[in-house]
Parts: sequence; structure tokens; C-alpha cells
Amino acid sequence: MKTHTTLLRILSAVIILLYSSNGLLAQNTDASQISNILQVQQYERAIHIMAMLLIGFGFLMVFVKKYGRSALTATFLLVSVSLPLYLFVKGLGVFEERGEIEQFILAEFGAASLLIAAGAVLGRIRIYQYLILGLVFIPFYMLNELIVVDDFFHFVGKVYDTGGSIVIHSFGALFGISAAISLTTKQDLEIPIESDATTDKYSVLGSMVLWVFWPSFCAALVPVEAIPYTVVNVFLALCGSTLATYFVSVKLRGKVLIADIANAALAGGVAIGATCDFASHPQAMIIGLLAGTISTFGFAILQDKQQKFHKIVDTCGVSNLHGLPGIFGGLAAIFVIDGIDAVSQLKGIAVTLILAVVSGLLGGKLVALFGRTKEAYNDRAEFKDAA
Amino acid sequence: MKTHTTLLRILSAVIILLYSSNGLLAQNTDASQISNILQVQQYERAIHIMAMLLIGFGFLMVFVKKYGRSALTATFLLVSVSLPLYLFVKGLGVFEERGEIEQFILAEFGAASLLIAAGAVLGRIRIYQYLILGLVFIPFYMLNELIVVDDFFHFVGKVYDTGGSIVIHSFGALFGISAAISLTTKQDLEIPIESDATTDKYSVLGSMVLWVFWPSFCAALVPVEAIPYTVVNVFLALCGSTLATYFVSVKLRGKVLIADIANAALAGGVAIGATCDFASHPQAMIIGLLAGTISTFGFAILQDKQQKFHKIVDTCGVSNLHGLPGIFGGLAAIFVIDGIDAVSQLKGIAVTLILAVVSGLLGGKLVALFGRTKEAYNDRAEFKDAA
Amino acid sequence: MKTHTTLLRILSAVIILLYSSNGLLAQNTDASQISNILQVQQYERAIHIMAMLLIGFGFLMVFVKKYGRSALTATFLLVSVSLPLYLFVKGLGVFEERGEIEQFILAEFGAASLLIAAGAVLGRIRIYQYLILGLVFIPFYMLNELIVVDDFFHFVGKVYDTGGSIVIHSFGALFGISAAISLTTKQDLEIPIESDATTDKYSVLGSMVLWVFWPSFCAALVPVEAIPYTVVNVFLALCGSTLATYFVSVKLRGKVLIADIANAALAGGVAIGATCDFASHPQAMIIGLLAGTISTFGFAILQDKQQKFHKIVDTCGVSNLHGLPGIFGGLAAIFVIDGIDAVSQLKGIAVTLILAVVSGLLGGKLVALFGRTKEAYNDRAEFKDAA
Repeated sequence: MKTHTTLLRILSAVIILLYSSNGLLAQNTDASQISNILQVQQYERAIHIMAMLLIGFGFLMVFVKKYGRSALTATFLLVSVSLPLYLFVKGLGVFEERGEIEQFILAEFGAASLLIAAGAVLGRIRIYQYLILGLVFIPFYMLNELIVVDDFFHFVGKVYDTGGSIVIHSFGALFGISAAISLTTKQDLEIPIESDATTDKYSVLGSMVLWVFWPSFCAALVPVEAIPYTVVNVFLALCGSTLATYFVSVKLRGKVLIADIANAALAGGVAIGATCDFASHPQAMIIGLLAGTISTFGFAILQDKQQKFHKIVDTCGVSNLHGLPGIFGGLAAIFVIDGIDAVSQLKGIAVTLILAVVSGLLGGKLVALFGRTKEAYNDRAEFKDAA
Repeated sequence: MKTHTTLLRILSAVIILLYSSNGLLAQNTDASQISNILQVQQYERAIHIMAMLLIGFGFLMVFVKKYGRSALTATFLLVSVSLPLYLFVKGLGVFEERGEIEQFILAEFGAASLLIAAGAVLGRIRIYQYLILGLVFIPFYMLNELIVVDDFFHFVGKVYDTGGSIVIHSFGALFGISAAISLTTKQDLEIPIESDATTDKYSVLGSMVLWVFWPSFCAALVPVEAIPYTVVNVFLALCGSTLATYFVSVKLRGKVLIADIANAALAGGVAIGATCDFASHPQAMIIGLLAGTISTFGFAILQDKQQKFHKIVDTCGVSNLHGLPGIFGGLAAIFVIDGIDAVSQLKGIAVTLILAVVSGLLGGKLVALFGRTKEAYNDRAEFKDAA
Repeated sequence: MKTHTTLLRILSAVIILLYSSNGLLAQNTDASQISNILQVQQYERAIHIMAMLLIGFGFLMVFVKKYGRSALTATFLLVSVSLPLYLFVKGLGVFEERGEIEQFILAEFGAASLLIAAGAVLGRIRIYQYLILGLVFIPFYMLNELIVVDDFFHFVGKVYDTGGSIVIHSFGALFGISAAISLTTKQDLEIPIESDATTDKYSVLGSMVLWVFWPSFCAALVPVEAIPYTVVNVFLALCGSTLATYFVSVKLRGKVLIADIANAALAGGVAIGATCDFASHPQAMIIGLLAGTISTFGFAILQDKQQKFHKIVDTCGVSNLHGLPGIFGGLAAIFVIDGIDAVSQLKGIAVTLILAVVSGLLGGKLVALFGRTKEAYNDRAEFKDAA
């Protein structure tokens, strides 16, 4: 009897020992290693997004012939001012917690939206004014994020926008074209924006960098198990918009315009953002086809009319690449996602657009206080020529 | 007695509980997390391959002076038509299963082979004909994949071709030069293919993008434990071909030709494909040195003779970069891999070459039905000039 | 009684079976899978570093107008000769062990340092002399690594230099400018180094590639749990140096010089290397701001004076981008890292600088034995013009 009791005790002790030393402990170690590994995978996507921000957006904007070095310098400065600012505002302690890379990716999203906004006024403000634009933009962007993404005020409800069709692309575009109202002079309306064969190719380089890394943008904060599905969706949407762009560009213009290819080919990435982790693969491709069509139509037909109507210049045509396809993508979610609350989704879009317009008008005025370019789309007044 | 029985039962229950809740469960959770993580790592490589397809192949082909925007547009279109097509043909349900990224990478391999084929006829077909080329190419490519890689008909046996020396590079090159027979006019034979200092640098940019990401191409579907070894092999092969290209180019031409560097430096990547996970590191470097030598010799000596003999133009010299080094790599496996069935390997090469030639001849005729460029290597008839 | 004993035995057996088959075994499998996964993540960073070496350094050096294809060819050759050489010297068996990717990343670090050194003499040696430079440089670099990083001779003690501010950047820069003493003719001192708008943009492209992937360089061999913190630090330092560069460039020159942006914006990455895994985030940003200031001051003010004083030309200004910010970063560690042994850190810096100068003087003489360029900063004597 005693032996048995003793044996049983020893057995129990062994079980507990084995369990605690190898079971629990091992499990904890593994769990923390897996959590580390997942964060490093997030960081890989953060690097991809950074390639999009600097090389992608930067070179896409190099098409303006006499303003290339300014476009690149502006990109450098906009990224360098907005990332620390976002982290600082969000932060004050956040950094010390886990999820550091997640915070950083959210900051990159803000920088992306800012670069879109800047594209609308590119070439018509002085270099240091891009810094002011960044300082003004980020707080408004974060306010919109707070209301629409975090639903901090319990006002909008659940908005589907994983890849930022609404809060990144539409917000940036609407802010930009609203800011352009204060930042376009009558004179600016008459100056042509020149490009040539070399600058066009730089533009396509930027476009391709954006295209290639776009899935990492949309899947940046998606749970690990949903990433493969999401990235295939993003690629299919981009294939769709690229094909549509070619056909619509030929149809509407008679010949292909390489600027259409460089820009509208990306519209699928913009539009799929809201539904990238929910759309079926065929739906993703259809969203891409429609987005490419809408965007090319915007560049070929709407842009002139809109510019004349609002008396603005939208240098990079951000309303066609980010504005329309972004809104389209946000609306598409209502038809694509099962069980979506359409009211919340519409509220999210409406709040974003209103806030973008209001803050863009204000932001434009603020930036305008700090001066004007001497010569639009030409940076010789600000850059020293090399020896 | 009773106490003991009860104790034993409780103990058993505890064991089972502990085991099932933490052991099995934890193990399953971990296993599925690890499987997710591995798939995300595959996706990282899928992104690298996409950078090669768009930026790499795209800019490598920009060297043709008056055809740069067409080369880039063609690249965009070829990728955008072939990926969904491959997935569609393969698919119809495949997407819903696991291994989605694996399917996508196989589709990217098909797109790579197509871009190689297109390189042979670049500049002599109209933009929409690249789309037709893609539609024609992919089914034949998939048929060859079915026969040689999957050994679906139990005809060839085991063929070693992890990185696609045979089924991607040789197939694409042979298809392309066979298609060129129908797609080269007498007139084309007399028009020089012009390049200049700027377009040459774009070409090197494309080349460097290919060089840098090549290990991800070869290791894309390799089991995780073999990846480190494989990627070091690919880098060593590329170092070998780069060094060989410089010396052979100076030797054969008197001076270096930058086009040799941009192209033949990559031959090591082409040739190591068949043996990248088996060759020893010194073997990998030697395969690279030989491949660089063969490729540069092809560009400097063979290309002219071959073009005159077949009365074709191979715009990008794909037979020298992908054809010869690919076949060389496939054959090298016979000497490098222990226990390889040489007959199967030779059968795999033979089937690939025959199928590529037959389908290339047919494909060229089909594409030729849809018209002709108005002016070879000049795209002004198809592209609208910017304002 | 018997039943109980039997039951107990069975129970024990079951425990052991369960434990060994699922506990230990599963744990081992997981541990080895996790180790594989971590090595593949290292390889991702190895690819990023390779993008920096070829595309980053390569295109950063394309700013020299008539020497672009040489700069790119030199980059190709320097990388292709130094990687296998480093692995060969280190190796002889190393390859077969685990940690293959770690070895490869160390080889890439050597190649980075070599590319820095080559930047100082760019345009004044013949193409094959870059190969000789590589053959001479790597053994000295490895000797310094042995003394300072591995503390093989127990001479310096623990030196903090995770991202290579000291042993990669300072060493390369000092080696380069010392080698320049033998590799600058009187004639060279009078030839201007021309650049233009197109080559400037290539230079910014290289710069952006370096900027984007720099965190992977610094975090390449950092333990997985420290990577997120480290990469945010590196990005903050780069933001700091980019902002500082713009303001200091305008302040010192009256206008911005795009070459300052392309170069000094990276100084934060150089300087943060020594403390990237220890500095607080605000410290990282301050180190970046100071490094950008120092570097721009170097380019705008010091370079001319130094070149006249030493009668050398430092083509790429490596002493301003890598020399000064590297030393500054190494020294900053003394103020930033708790419990650092300042004497060891200073010894590490001193040994590196002395060894770099001595080996650079020797290396320059050795390379000079093999000839001279016919015409500085112009490669028409060595490159064949395209048809």
C-alpha cells in the first residue's frame, strides 16, 4: 500500500516536473519565439512599404522634367518628418510596449497618405513647405484614423479598410486636392507640366516598385494565416488594373500614354485595400479591372474638366489614382463582404472625405502662409548646380 | 484500495488533460503557426521573384533606345496576363486548398519563362501582340511542366531542375527564337538595335535586380532546411559568371561591352538552377564561371552567326543568356548529382527543347496573324507623346 | 494489488511514451524548425544587404558623368571577387557547419567596406585594378575584424559595433583615402568630376535603396528578439540625418545640393551602427541629426581643405559619409551604452584607424603597380561603344 502511495506520488511529481519543465516551459519559449518571428516578418513588410514610400512614390513623381531632384528631396523630407512625428504623437511610452513594428507600420501608412497629398501640389511649393505640409497633415490624418479605424468615439462602427483604400488613399487624395485650392495660382494653371522619355522611365520604375511591394502594404497588419490569401488577391487586382489601363488608354486616347500605364496600373492596389482579405479571387480581379478603368478614365477625361472647374492643378493626378479608386474600393466592400454593416462603411467613407476636405482646405492655407515657388515645376531657384 | 483506484483515475485524467490541453493542442497550434510562418516566408520569396519579373526583366529590356516605354509596358502586360491565366488553368478549386503561395510561385515561374521568350522578339510585334503571345505561351509551358516536372505521363522520370535551368530558361529561350522565325522580316534583319549610355544604365539596373533576388527564385520552393545552402550556391554561381563575363568580354572584344556585363553576368543564375540544392559550393562557383564564359562567347561570337543562319533577330540575345547556359546547367546535373538517372535528365532536356521549338514555331505563326509593327524597335506609332 | 501495480506500470509507460513521442520529439522538431526559420529570416536580410551592395552602392557612384558604366561594372566585380574570397579565407570547412548565412552576411559586410574604400579612388584606376584592390583589401579587413570584433588576441576587449560604424564604415573610408595617396596624380587634382541631372537621379536611386534596406544591414546578425527595436532605431537615425542634411546644406551653400541629399542623408545609418541595439529611440534620432550635420559639413566645407592638404581626390567623399560619421558613431557608444568599457571602445576605434591607414597606404601602392587610367573619370578607353 505504502509503496503504491509513494509510487503514485513520485509518478505525480515526475508528471508535474516533465510537464512544467518541458511542456509549459517549452511551450512558453516557443510561443515567445514564434511571436518574435512573427514580428520580424512584420518588419520585412515594413521594409517593403519603405521601398514603396521612398523609391516608389519618389520616382513615380520624377516625371516632372525640371523638378526631378525636388520630387526626390521632397519624398525624403516628407518621410523623414512624418514617421517620427506620428510615432511621437502616438507615443510617449508606446515604443516601450510590444508591437513596436505595428506602430511603425501605422506611421508608414500615414507617410503614404501624406505623399499622396503632396502629389497634388507637387512643384508649386518650396522645398521647406513640404515639411510644413507634413507637420500639418499628420495630426489630421491621425484624427481621422482615430475616428474611422479605431472608432474611438463609437461613432462610425466597424469600417472595413485593411489596406487603406479609404483612410490612406482617399484621405490623402482629397486632402491634396483641397490643399491645391490655396496652392494653385492663376499663373500655375497655364504652365504645362513637361515630361520626357527619360523622366517617363523613372516614373515607370517608381510604379513597378509600388506594384511589386503592394501586397506587403495591404497584408502588413493582417494575421499570419490570412496573408497568403490576401497577397494573391492584391496581385490579381493589380493584374486586372494593368490590363484594363492598357485597353482603356488606347480606347480613349487612340494611342497608349505611358503615364497612364505608370499610374492607373496601380489603381487595383488602391481599390482592393478595403476588401483584400475578404474578396474572392475572381472578385479581386474584377475590382482591379474596374479600378483600372475608372482611373484611366479619370486621367484621360475627368482631370481636365475637374481642374478647370475647381481652378486647381493636381500635378500627379492623385484624384484619379487614389481618390476615385479609393472611394470605389471602399464602396465595393458593401457588395463583397458578407455581414458588413453598410451604414458604418458609408459613415467611414463620409467622415474621411469630409475631414480630408476640411483639413486640406485649412492645411493648404497654412502652407500658403509660408511663401510661394518662384517658378512652378522648376527647381533651379532652390538647387545648386553641380560643379 | 479505493483511494488508490480513485487516485490513479484522477492521475490518469490529469495526464490526459495536461497532455491534450497543452501537449497535443499546443503542438497542433505550433505546427499550424509554423506552417503559416513558412508560407509567409514563401511569400517573401514570391515578392522577390515579382521584383525580378517586373523591374528586373522590364529594365533589362530597356536598352533598346526608342523602345523603352514599350519594353516596360510589354513587361507589365505579359506579367498581368500570364499570372491569372496560369492560376485559372491550374485552378478551379486549387486556390481554396493550402499551398496557395506555392501555386502563385509556379505561376511566376511561367511568367519568367514567357518574359524570356518575349525577349527574343522584342520590338518587332505590336503591344497587344505581347498579350496574344502570353495567351499562346502559357498552355504550352504548362504542358511541358506537366510532362517534365510533374512527370504526369510517367514518361521522363525524375528530372533535377529546382531553379528551372531547363523548364524555365531553356524552354523560354527556345520558344522565343523559334517564334522569331515567323516574327522577323527581311527588313528587320537590316535595322540596327540602337542603345545609348542612358538606356545601358537602365539595363544594368534590371540586371542587378535580377542578380540580387535570384537566390529567392531558385530557393522559392526548396524545403526550409535546404534554403541557406541553396542561396549561397546561387550567389557563388553569380559571382563566378560575373567574373568570367568581364574577362571573356575583354578577351573576345578587346574592350568590355557593358551589355555583356548586364546580361552574361546572370548566366550563373540560369545554369545553377538545375543543381542549386545539390552542387557543392566550389562546384557552384565553377558552374557559374563556365556559364559566364559560354554566355559571353554566345553574345560575342555565336549570335551573329546564328542570326544569319536562321535569318532571325534575337533582340535580347536570349539564346545566349537563357538557352545555352540553361542547357549547360541541365547537363551539369548529370556530373554533379549523386545517383541521378542520366537518361531521365536527358529525356527531360530533350522533351523541353522539342516542345519549345514546336510550340514556338506554332506560337510565332499565331502571333504573326495579328499584324506587324509599323517600324521595328521604335514605338512612336503606338505611344502618345506627353504634353 | 497486482492490478494496481500493473496499472501503475502501464500509466508510467503511457506517460513516458506520450512524453517522449510528443513532448521531447515535438519540442526537438519545433526547435529545429524554428532554427531553420530564423536562418531563412537571416537570409532575407542577406538579400536586402545584397541590394544595398549592388544597386545601392553601384548607383550611388553613377553620379560621375562619363564613368557610369565603369562604376556599375566595378561594383559587380568588387562584390563578385570579395564574397568568395572572404568565404574561402574564413572557410575551409566553415561552409559545412551551421550558420552558413551568418558567414555569408559577414562576407557581405566585408564587401560593403571594400565598396566604401573603392569609392575614394573611383575613376582613377583601371577596371581590373578594382579586382586587385579587392584581393588586397579583404585580408586586411579580416585581420581587423579578427582583432576588433572577435578580440582574437584578447587585446581590445569588448567593442560595441553591431552595425559596423567602426569596423565597416571607418575602416573602409580610411583605407580608401590612404590608398588615394598613391592613386591620385597631380593631373587628377585638376580634373573636375562632372555630374548632370540624369546621373544625379541615378545617385539618389542608389541612396534610397541604401536608406530603405539599412535596418536589415544593422540588424542582420542581431538576435531575433532585439530586431524590432533595432530597426526602428536605424530608421529614426536615418530620418534625423535626412532632415539635418537638408537644413545644413541650405545653410552652408545657400541652396540645396542634391549630392548632399543623396549622400549625407545616409550618415545616420553609418553612425547608428555602433549603438543601434542599445540607444533609446530619442538618442537614435539625435545621433542621426548630428551625423547628418557632421557629414554635410564635411562635404560642404572640409572636403576641399582635406583634399588640398593631402593632395588627394576622394571621388565619392567617403571620408565625409563613412569616415567622420563612423568614428562619431563609435564614440557615441561611450555616452549611450550603460556599462561600456570606454577604454576597449577607444582601443577598437584606434586599432581600426591605424590598421586602415597602414593597409590603405600599402594597398594603394600595390594597386598602383598595375598601371593607371588613361583618362580620369572617363571610361571610353576601356569600354566598347554599343552598335
